Amino acid sequence: MAVVYKRVALIGLGLIASSMFWAIKRGGLAGTVTGYARSAETRDTARQIGLCDQVCDTINDAVQDADLVVLCVPVGAMGAVAAQIAPYLKDGATVSDVGSVKRDVIEQVGPHLPASVAFIPAHPLAGTEHSGPTSGFAELFDNRWCLLVPADGTPAPAIAALRTLWEGIGCNVEEMDADHHDLVLAVTSHAPHLIAYTMVGVADDLRRVTDSEVIKYSAAGFRDFTRIAASDPTMWRDVFLTNKDATLEILGRFTEELFALQRAIRTGDGDHLHAYFTRTRAIRRGIIEAGQDTDAPDFGRAKLKP
Amino acid sequence: MAVVYKRVALIGLGLIASSMFWAIKRGGLAGTVTGYARSAETRDTARQIGLCDQVCDTINDAVQDADLVVLCVPVGAMGAVAAQIAPYLKDGATVSDVGSVKRDVIEQVGPHLPASVAFIPAHPLAGTEHSGPTSGFAELFDNRWCLLVPADGTPAPAIAALRTLWEGIGCNVEEMDADHHDLVLAVTSHAPHLIAYTMVGVADDLRRVTDSEVIKYSAAGFRDFTRIAASDPTMWRDVFLTNKDATLEILGRFTEELFALQRAIRTGDGDHLHAYFTRTRAIRRGIIEAGQDTDAPDFGRAKLKP
Repeated sequence: MAVVYKRVALIGLGLIASSMFWAIKRGGLAGTVTGYARSAETRDTARQIGLCDQVCDTINDAVQDADLVVLCVPVGAMGAVAAQIAPYLKDGATVSDVGSVKRDVIEQVGPHLPASVAFIPAHPLAGTEHSGPTSGFAELFDNRWCLLVPADGTPAPAIAALRTLWEGIGCNVEEMDADHHDLVLAVTSHAPHLIAYTMVGVADDLRRVTDSEVIKYSAAGFRDFTRIAASDPTMWRDVFLTNKDATLEILGRFTEELFALQRAIRTGDGDHLHAYFTRTRAIRRGIIEAGQDTDAPDFGRAKLKP
Repeated sequence: MAVVYKRVALIGLGLIASSMFWAIKRGGLAGTVTGYARSAETRDTARQIGLCDQVCDTINDAVQDADLVVLCVPVGAMGAVAAQIAPYLKDGATVSDVGSVKRDVIEQVGPHLPASVAFIPAHPLAGTEHSGPTSGFAELFDNRWCLLVPADGTPAPAIAALRTLWEGIGCNVEEMDADHHDLVLAVTSHAPHLIAYTMVGVADDLRRVTDSEVIKYSAAGFRDFTRIAASDPTMWRDVFLTNKDATLEILGRFTEELFALQRAIRTGDGDHLHAYFTRTRAIRRGIIEAGQDTDAPDFGRAKLKP
């Protein structure tokens, strides 16, 4: 693959930035990748593992002369970082991000940026429950979606270049409106995460009663919740606070439906339960057909063994 | 391994019974395994794929002379099946089951059985979202738990034999009281399943609005819910109806905590959210240490590829 940007700056060196770096190197997509993290410890770790061609001690050094600057910090920190880097951005550079919420990022970041740079918010739909500079790997984005949310009037060549980068990293790329993005993600990601966090919290309360039986017998369904609920606390705090309206709307619908099912259990309405469970089963089929999961018969468990 | 029972009868030929059969054969744990299913189509399929040494057209033929009879039907059908087989059970035989609820099964099945047989309810904590006679595989139970719930006064040799069988099948075996079992499973399995069904149902409603985006972008967290919510509708209907009290109690706690988190989102209480998410993260660590899941960095996804 050809070089897409001569110089890329990654601001924040966690799971997403480190995976981006390894994927960019794998694909030969950038000449030089600089990196910056607020914590000196993170910068030291990055240097030790060869994460980024150059780890900078100041954020201005990192963004100076960069053709693409990607903000890989928690959503709640985006505005402050944008204000910091704005004076040092090169004319004609592109600024992007990887935040899980888009409307709020646009409102926080946009006003700080000079008119001479293109701002193209982005969101790669990939992650694990691990975080930090050592958690990244080049394959994280393979066959995952990356959603671009460019403002009206963004130069087409700038959008095309960012698309080429993400495709080189391994993603399928689509463009989407910011508000629609936030609603879709509230359904597919934000509400499910809050629900998983809640269920794990409830089990933790009970664990004190049942002496770690919850952990021991987790394979019965609970295990998948704990994986989701192990994601980075700071990132997720910011997601919920910045995509408040859509998340609360979906949670409202969720509670309504949950109450209806609880009522069916209480009244013994087996037909209602059976019909509901039959309907949800069909959705799983759609996801496997869409290539977003495997149909392995044992949740992939057996294949994970050495 | 040595033969544990000369003759084993599996009643109901779905995911669990078929996996038991393949594991019993793998381990050489029984002389002959007979099988019965109510549906002629299931019996035909079983014969075609070599499931069971002998597939019987009547339930009496299947249980006749069996040293162990395992009821592998939905929990709601256990009582009727027990009434059917009772007259044909051999003196000294053991009757067991694989139901996900134990108190209700004991109340349904126990009264039908003659005093000359040992009744040892059991529950292997293993499954997939697939069902039917072709969905089984010998490895399903490897390193999973099987909980035995024997009544007081059950002969120790009968319990020891059933334990040996399940260990040969691949499980770690523990004994547990029925009510305690039902509470632990409400937390680790029943409530999580209902919650996953609910969230997938909510997304399905929204899917009509957003043109299958929910499926397309499921990898963002929702995917794990759909896997859980694809489980057998009849089995789960029966689980909720027969473990009503414990499930509703856990769901009540869940709703309470969910409301507290929703309130924190609405009022912008980031500290509350962050503290909660930090606590749940630790539980995941415990599950990995307990050997009930893998720590693979990408939810096992990359390794599932060919």
